[in-house]
Amino acid sequence: MAYFNDVPKIKFEGYQSTNPFAFKYYDAEEKVGGKSMKEHLKFSVAYWHTLTGDGGDPFGAGTALRPWDHLSGMDQAKARVEAAFELFEKLDVPYFCFHDVDVAPEGSSLKETNDNLDVIVAMIKDYMKTSRTKLLWNTANMFTHPRFTHGAATANDANVYAYSAAKVKKGLEVGKELGAENYVFWGGREGYETLLNTDLKLELDNLAKFYHMALDYAKEIGFDAQFLIEPKPKEPTTHQYDFDVATATAFLHQYGLEQDFKFNIEANHATLAGHTFEHELRVARTSGMLGSVDANQGDTLLGWDTDEFPTDLYSTTLAMYEILKNGGLGRGGLNFDAKVRRGSFAPNDLFHAHIAGMDAFAIGLKVANKLIEDNFFETIVNNRYDTFKSAIGEKITAGNTNFKELEQHALQLDTIEVKSGQVEKIKAQLNQYLLRVNEL
Amino acid sequence: MAYFNDVPKIKFEGYQSTNPFAFKYYDAEEKVGGKSMKEHLKFSVAYWHTLTGDGGDPFGAGTALRPWDHLSGMDQAKARVEAAFELFEKLDVPYFCFHDVDVAPEGSSLKETNDNLDVIVAMIKDYMKTSRTKLLWNTANMFTHPRFTHGAATANDANVYAYSAAKVKKGLEVGKELGAENYVFWGGREGYETLLNTDLKLELDNLAKFYHMALDYAKEIGFDAQFLIEPKPKEPTTHQYDFDVATATAFLHQYGLEQDFKFNIEANHATLAGHTFEHELRVARTSGMLGSVDANQGDTLLGWDTDEFPTDLYSTTLAMYEILKNGGLGRGGLNFDAKVRRGSFAPNDLFHAHIAGMDAFAIGLKVANKLIEDNFFETIVNNRYDTFKSAIGEKITAGNTNFKELEQHALQLDTIEVKSGQVEKIKAQLNQYLLRVNEL
Amino acid sequence: MAYFNDVPKIKFEGYQSTNPFAFKYYDAEEKVGGKSMKEHLKFSVAYWHTLTGDGGDPFGAGTALRPWDHLSGMDQAKARVEAAFELFEKLDVPYFCFHDVDVAPEGSSLKETNDNLDVIVAMIKDYMKTSRTKLLWNTANMFTHPRFTHGAATANDANVYAYSAAKVKKGLEVGKELGAENYVFWGGREGYETLLNTDLKLELDNLAKFYHMALDYAKEIGFDAQFLIEPKPKEPTTHQYDFDVATATAFLHQYGLEQDFKFNIEANHATLAGHTFEHELRVARTSGMLGSVDANQGDTLLGWDTDEFPTDLYSTTLAMYEILKNGGLGRGGLNFDAKVRRGSFAPNDLFHAHIAGMDAFAIGLKVANKLIEDNFFETIVNNRYDTFKSAIGEKITAGNTNFKELEQHALQLDTIEVKSGQVEKIKAQLNQYLLRVNEL
Amino acid sequence: MAYFNDVPKIKFEGYQSTNPFAFKYYDAEEKVGGKSMKEHLKFSVAYWHTLTGDGGDPFGAGTALRPWDHLSGMDQAKARVEAAFELFEKLDVPYFCFHDVDVAPEGSSLKETNDNLDVIVAMIKDYMKTSRTKLLWNTANMFTHPRFTHGAATANDANVYAYSAAKVKKGLEVGKELGAENYVFWGGREGYETLLNTDLKLELDNLAKFYHMALDYAKEIGFDAQFLIEPKPKEPTTHQYDFDVATATAFLHQYGLEQDFKFNIEANHATLAGHTFEHELRVARTSGMLGSVDANQGDTLLGWDTDEFPTDLYSTTLAMYEILKNGGLGRGGLNFDAKVRRGSFAPNDLFHAHIAGMDAFAIGLKVANKLIEDNFFETIVNNRYDTFKSAIGEKITAGNTNFKELEQHALQLDTIEVKSGQVEKIKAQLNQYLLRVNEL
Ligand SMILES: [Co+2]
Ligand SMILES: [Co+2]
Ligand SMILES: [Co+2]
Ligand SMILES: [Co+2]
Ligand SMILES: [Co+2]
Ligand SMILES: [Co+2]
Ligand SMILES: [Co+2]
Ligand SMILES: [Co+2]
Repeated sequence: MAYFNDVPKIKFEGYQSTNPFAFKYYDAEEKVGGKSMKEHLKFSVAYWHTLTGDGGDPFGAGTALRPWDHLSGMDQAKARVEAAFELFEKLDVPYFCFHDVDVAPEGSSLKETNDNLDVIVAMIKDYMKTSRTKLLWNTANMFTHPRFTHGAATANDANVYAYSAAKVKKGLEVGKELGAENYVFWGGREGYETLLNTDLKLELDNLAKFYHMALDYAKEIGFDAQFLIEPKPKEPTTHQYDFDVATATAFLHQYGLEQDFKFNIEANHATLAGHTFEHELRVARTSGMLGSVDANQGDTLLGWDTDEFPTDLYSTTLAMYEILKNGGLGRGGLNFDAKVRRGSFAPNDLFHAHIAGMDAFAIGLKVANKLIEDNFFETIVNNRYDTFKSAIGEKITAGNTNFKELEQHALQLDTIEVKSGQVEKIKAQLNQYLLRVNEL
Repeated sequence: MAYFNDVPKIKFEGYQSTNPFAFKYYDAEEKVGGKSMKEHLKFSVAYWHTLTGDGGDPFGAGTALRPWDHLSGMDQAKARVEAAFELFEKLDVPYFCFHDVDVAPEGSSLKETNDNLDVIVAMIKDYMKTSRTKLLWNTANMFTHPRFTHGAATANDANVYAYSAAKVKKGLEVGKELGAENYVFWGGREGYETLLNTDLKLELDNLAKFYHMALDYAKEIGFDAQFLIEPKPKEPTTHQYDFDVATATAFLHQYGLEQDFKFNIEANHATLAGHTFEHELRVARTSGMLGSVDANQGDTLLGWDTDEFPTDLYSTTLAMYEILKNGGLGRGGLNFDAKVRRGSFAPNDLFHAHIAGMDAFAIGLKVANKLIEDNFFETIVNNRYDTFKSAIGEKITAGNTNFKELEQHALQLDTIEVKSGQVEKIKAQLNQYLLRVNEL
Repeated sequence: MAYFNDVPKIKFEGYQSTNPFAFKYYDAEEKVGGKSMKEHLKFSVAYWHTLTGDGGDPFGAGTALRPWDHLSGMDQAKARVEAAFELFEKLDVPYFCFHDVDVAPEGSSLKETNDNLDVIVAMIKDYMKTSRTKLLWNTANMFTHPRFTHGAATANDANVYAYSAAKVKKGLEVGKELGAENYVFWGGREGYETLLNTDLKLELDNLAKFYHMALDYAKEIGFDAQFLIEPKPKEPTTHQYDFDVATATAFLHQYGLEQDFKFNIEANHATLAGHTFEHELRVARTSGMLGSVDANQGDTLLGWDTDEFPTDLYSTTLAMYEILKNGGLGRGGLNFDAKVRRGSFAPNDLFHAHIAGMDAFAIGLKVANKLIEDNFFETIVNNRYDTFKSAIGEKITAGNTNFKELEQHALQLDTIEVKSGQVEKIKAQLNQYLLRVNEL
Repeated sequence: MAYFNDVPKIKFEGYQSTNPFAFKYYDAEEKVGGKSMKEHLKFSVAYWHTLTGDGGDPFGAGTALRPWDHLSGMDQAKARVEAAFELFEKLDVPYFCFHDVDVAPEGSSLKETNDNLDVIVAMIKDYMKTSRTKLLWNTANMFTHPRFTHGAATANDANVYAYSAAKVKKGLEVGKELGAENYVFWGGREGYETLLNTDLKLELDNLAKFYHMALDYAKEIGFDAQFLIEPKPKEPTTHQYDFDVATATAFLHQYGLEQDFKFNIEANHATLAGHTFEHELRVARTSGMLGSVDANQGDTLLGWDTDEFPTDLYSTTLAMYEILKNGGLGRGGLNFDAKVRRGSFAPNDLFHAHIAGMDAFAIGLKVANKLIEDNFFETIVNNRYDTFKSAIGEKITAGNTNFKELEQHALQLDTIEVKSGQVEKIKAQLNQYLLRVNEL
C-alpha cells in the first residue's frame, strides 16, 4: 500500500529546476573530492519527527495530516513502518533513527511494551532486507512517560532507574538486531529543575554507573555500535546535565568513560547552549569525539529547540567543512532531527522539508570541498600562526621552553606587531565561494 | 593623608539602623554556627573596580569622581594604594585582589612596567605590615593592551605568548612577595572570535603548556598559592575557552591539569553561561574544586557582564549554603568583583556598595546556617532519594548490579509511584526562613 | 462531593507557622493602609492551569494527578466545576478566570460546543449564587485547535476569522451571563511565523476590525466589562503582534482603539519581552491603561513562558508598589496565571502553590505600603529631579520655553554637577524594608 | 595629502575577481529593475565607526591603526576630514553621517565646542563642493560625556536638558548648513537604569516637549530635513525608551508627534529587541514610517550591539525586498553603522569591510528585485489569503460585517480546511534564488 501517492521518487534535476519534488543540488552519484555525494552525506530520517510527530506544541493540538491518522495502536505503528520505507525509498535516504516509543506503542506493562516492540522490530527488519536504508542509531525515550518526571538514570527513585536500565537493555538488543551503527543517549530529563530538592552528586554518580552497565551489556551481547552522547542544554529540564560537548566531556573524564563515547551533535542544541554549530563540531573533532550529527537549525531569536529543517547555507557549509576535515563521520551520519513547522502540516511538506535539507547539505558539501581544495582556511591559519613554526614559537609548541626563557625573549622584544584578523575580508570571500556553487 | 574624609569607620549598628555608613547585618565578631562572621566571610575588595575603574562604558567616558583624579602615572598609583588601605580599614575587609596593571601603570617597555610594579608592590607590602588586610589573589591583565588583541596564552603570535609568560612569571613573583593565598587565571581574551581564522587545537595545546610552565615556575620559586581558573563565557571574546566550570574541567582533564587547579566562581559569569550562581558552585563543589568566589550579580535581562554589587538575598543565601557545605572556601574568599554603577560615581558610593554587598552576604550566611542547622534541604533530599538507601537502590549506588538484574526488577514492578517535587512549597518555606533573619 | 479531602480550609496562622496548609502572611481581614488585604488583593484562580492543565510539556505527557481523572467529556467538566468551587472556598479567593475550552469540551460542531458551554455556564452560575467567588474575566481560546494554526482574528482564512468572531461573540455573552468584570484578549496565535508568507498589514487591519466589532457587540448586549489586551512576545508565534504594552499601545492608537482597552499584564510575558514586570506595569500605569495583572513569574535563564507561581518577593513588592500608586486595579485583579511545575503533580501542590503566591503578594503589599507611607521612592525621586521645580526647569515642564532660551541658559552654565543615582544604597535599603515585614 | 596610499579607487570587477580592493557585485551604473544600483543603494559611511572609532571595547584599549594617530585635537579632526573624503571618493559612496563630537573635539565650554564644530563644518562644506558625497544625516552625541550620565532630554536635571537642547539646536543648524537629508535622534541614554530612582512619566513628558521644540526650531530656521528616531533596546541604558519601532510609534502617537517623524532602522538593534531586521522594516513600512536604514548585522549569540558590517545575504535580501516594496527610502539611505572588528585594526580593513557590505547589499538588491519581478512572495501571499477576496472575506476586509453575521457564517461551516504554510518549500526556493544571483 502507498501512503504518499502524490509524491514521485525524488530525482536530481539541477539548480534550475522548479519542480518541488526534485533535488536541485543533491545528486547521489556526483563525485565531490573523489567520493560520491552518497558516500559523503549519510542522511538519516528521524522517525519521531517525520513518522510519529503530530505538530502539537505547548499551546495547541497536533495539526499533522497523515495517511495513518485513521489507525491506532499497533495497526498505526505498522502503517507507519510501511510509510517510512516508502518515504525512505522515495527520498533514497540511506539511514533512519528512532526511539523505542516512536516505532511501537507502550503497553500496559514493560513486558507488553517489549512485546509490541518485538513485533515492530521484526517488521522493520523484514523491510530492511530489501531496502537500501539502514539504521543509523536507535535510542530509548526516557522522558515522555510520567514515570520519568524526575529523570531516568538520574531519577530520585531506584525503581525508575531500574526501569530505565531495562529500557536501554532492550534498546541495545534492538540495535543489535537491526544492525545499528550507533547507540545514542540523549538525556531527555537527565538534569534538575532546581537545586532546592536535588542531590546533584548522587545523580551524576548514578548516571556514570548506568553508562558503565550499558557498556558492559553491549559487550556481553556483542553489540559493537559506537556509543554517542547527544548534549543539550536547558530543555526540558532547566539544568540538563549534558549542557554541551565540553560539559559532557568533563563528565566522561571524571568517570573514566572518555574512551567509550563520542558525540552526536545537534545544531539547535549548540545554539541553545550559546555556541555555533561549528563550534560544537570543532570541539568534538579536536578531541577525536565527533561521532554523528543531528542536522537541523534553530531560531536564535527564540529560547527553545525549534528543530527546523536545515536551510541556512552558512551553517551547512561550515558544518561540512568540519566533517570533511574529520575525514567524514565514520559510523555516524547526518540525521534530520528536524520537524516540519506546525503550519506545514500536509504530507507533502515532509518531502519538501527533506529535499530542502538534503540540498542545503549538498550545497554545503560542495562549497566546503572547494574551500578545502583551495586551502582557503588553511592558508589563512598557516599565515596567521606562522610565528609558531620557528625559533621561540617552535620551542613553545614542542614544549621545550619555560617561563624564564620566555621572559628573556619578551624582555628583548621591541613592540610586538600583531596581525589584523581580517574577518570582514574573509566573510566577503566566503560569500563569493557560496555564490559560485552552481559552477562546481 | 585621608581620601575619604566624609566616611567614618563602618560599624555594625543592626538591622534597624538608618545610618548609611553602618553595617546592618555584618557583625564581624558575631558567631554563626560556631565561627565568627569574620571567619566565615573572607571579603575582598577588587582593586580594579574600586580603585582603578572610572565608570566608563562602551557609550561613554568615565564618570567616577575620585580623590586621586588630579594625579597621574606613578603618583596616582601611589595615591590609590594609600586610598585603598584607608578603604580596607574603614570597611575592615580582610582581603584584596588585583591585576598587575590595576596597581601600577604600564611602562614603555616590559622592563619599565616591571620596575613600576616593583615600586608599588614594595609600597603595598609596607602597608600590609600594619594592616589586617591580606592579598587574596593577584593576576595578570592580559586583555587590555592591544598586543593581546588575539589572545595571550592562546594568541596566534609566539611573541605575544612569550610576553604573556613574562607577565605571569612576574605575577607569580609578586604573589609570593605579598603572600597571596591564590593565583587567578581569567582568560580575558583566551578564546576566539570566529573559527574562520582560528586554529582552536593549537591554541588550547598552547594554553595547557602555559599552565604547566606556570605550575613549574611557582614550584621553582616556592610559591604555594592555590591556582584558580575563573570561567566566563562570551565576553570579551565571542567564544571564551573557559565558558563555565564544566568546560574548564574538561580542559583540565584533557591536559592532565585537574589536580593543580580549582575554580574562582563569579555569579555574573554563571548567569551569562545560562546557569545559576549556585549551579556553578555546586558543580565545582562536587568535584572538590570550589576554590574562591567573585561575589557579584548580573542582570539576566541584559546579555553582558554587569558586575553589580550583590544584593539579591536569594542568591547570597544559596551561595552561602554551598560554601558552608563545602566547609568554607579554604584559602579562597568572597571577592567583590563588582563595580558601582556608572551613575553611582561619588566616592561615598564605593562604601554604600560594599556595605550593601557585605550585609547581603551576612544575611545569606545567617539564613544558610539556619537552614543547615534545621537540616532543611537535607531532609528534603533524604526523603526524596530514600529508595536508594535499601534493596535495589542500595545495589545501584554501591555499583553491585547490572542491566539484567535491573531488568528483572523492572519487570516485576507494578506502576511506579514517583513523588511530587513540591518546589512551590519549598520556595514558600525558603521565603519564611529569609524573612525571619532578624530573629537569628 | 469533596475532591480535596486532605486539604482543610486555609487559614491565616502567621509567619511562624509551619503548617503547609496555612497562610503565613495573607490575612484577609488585616488592614494595610486603611483597607483590608482582601480589598487590596483581588486574587483569582486561573481555571486552565489549576483545573484543566495536566502538566504535559513538549517532551512529556501530562503528570497531574487529579480527582477527576477517571471522568471524561461533560462529566469531567462538571466535576471540575465542583472541584473548582471547593478550591475557591478553601483558599477563599474572590475571583477566577477561564477560557471557553477550559470549562467545557469542544463539540463536533460550533453549535455543540456552544451547547456544552451553556450547560457548564449555567452550572457555574448556580455555584456563584452561593459562593463569594466571582468572575474576574473570561476569554476565548483561539490557539489550541488546528483551525487556528495560522491565527484567529489575524488568520489567513476568512472562515477562521468568522469562526473566531463567533467564539468571541459567545465569550461576550458568557461574560455578561456570569457578570465578568473584564474580558481579555490574549492573541494566542495572533502573530506570524515568518514574513516569507505573511501579509502583516492585512492581518493587523483585520485584527483592528475584529476589536471594533467586539466592542460594538458588547455594547449591543449591554456587557460593560473592561476590555483588556494581554501582551506577550514570541510564543507560540515567533512574532506575536502584542509583543509588549508599548507595542499594543501603538496598535490601539493606530486604529483608534486606545480609549476602549486597558492591559492585563503578566510578569512572565514582561521578562520574555526583555522587560521587568514593574516596567510593564509602570508603562501601562502612566498611560492610564493598567487594567489587571497575571500574577506569576518566569525563569530568566530560560527562553519561554514558564508561568511559575510568584514567590520572588522583590518582584511582588515592586508590583504592589505600582498597583498601590495606581489606586488599585479598579475592576482588575491578581490572576494566578501560574501552573504547578510538572514535577509538582499532586493535588495538594495546587494548594501549596496558591498559598505561596498569595503570601508572596501579601508580603509585597505590606512592604510596598510601608514604602509609600514612608515616601521612600517619592523622596528619592523628588530630590533627584528637583531642578525641574523652579527656574528653567519649571519652564521646561510647563512647556514655556524653546531651544533658543535653553541654549542661552546652557551657554552661561559652568560645569554641570549631576547627582549620583545611588542605586546600591537604595537596594540595600530596600532589603532592610523587606526583612522587616514581620514587624508590620 | 593621501591617507590610504595602498588603496586604489575601488572598481567593479565582477564576481570572479579575487582582488580584495574591488567590488564583486556592486556596479554603480548597472541597472536593476530600471534604476541604477547607485540610485537604489544610497550607501553612507558612518563617521564615528570609520573615522573616529579606535577599536576599544570594555576590556581593552583601542587597537585601530590610523594614519592620523600622531595628531590630536583640531589637527586630528582636520586630518580625519581629509581622510574621510579620500575614503568616500575611493569607495564612491554617496553619503556620510556623523554625530557632532565625531567630527570636532569638545572644547572646555559649550561655546568653544560650537566654535570647534564651526571650523570643521566649514571645512566639510568646502570638501562637499567638489565631492559627490552628501550628508545623509547628522545627530548630536548626548551619551558620551559624563553630564549625560542620567540622560539628555530625559535627564533628571534641568541644566542637562538645557544643554541637550543647545546641542540639538546646533545640530539642526549644522544639518541645514551642510544640506542634510535627515536629522536623527538616537536616544543614547534616553532610558532608565532602574525604576527605583526614576520618574518615568516626567522623563517621557520632557522628551516629547524636547521633540516639539526641535520641530519648531527646524521650522524656524527653514531646515526641512526628515526627522528620524532610531530605536534601540537595552544598551547603554537598561531600559531604553525607544525599544523598537512599535514602542517609539506608541510614544509618537501619545504625544501627537506621529506625523513629524519616521524611523532609522538598524539591523542589530532589531535583533537585540528580539525581532528580525525585516520585521522592523516591515512594521515601519506598513505605517508609512520607514525613513532610513543603519545597515549592519549583529551576533544573535551575543547580548549586545556588535555593529558588524553586513555580510549575511539572507538579511540583505529580505531588507532590500522591504526597501524596494517601500518604493525606496525617499530621503533616507543605507548607512553602514558598522565597525571593523577590534581585531581588524589595519587601515585596509576599513575598505575590505565597506566592500563586503556594499557587495552584500548589491547581491540583496539583485535577488530581491528578481523576487519582485517574479512576484515570488506576492504569489504566495495572494494564494494564501485568497478567501479574503470574495464573499464573507470581502465583507470582512471592507468592514461591512459584524459578529452576528460572522457567527451565522461560522455556524454553517463544516470543517475548515486551513492551508499549509509551506515554509520549508519557500526557504528552499529562496536559496535557489540566492544562488542564481550570478546569472542576474
Ligand atoms: Co537531536
Ligand atoms: Co533538538
Ligand atoms: Co570575576
Ligand atoms: Co564579571
Ligand atoms: Co504566561
Ligand atoms: Co497570562
Ligand atoms: Co548599533
Ligand atoms: Co545605528
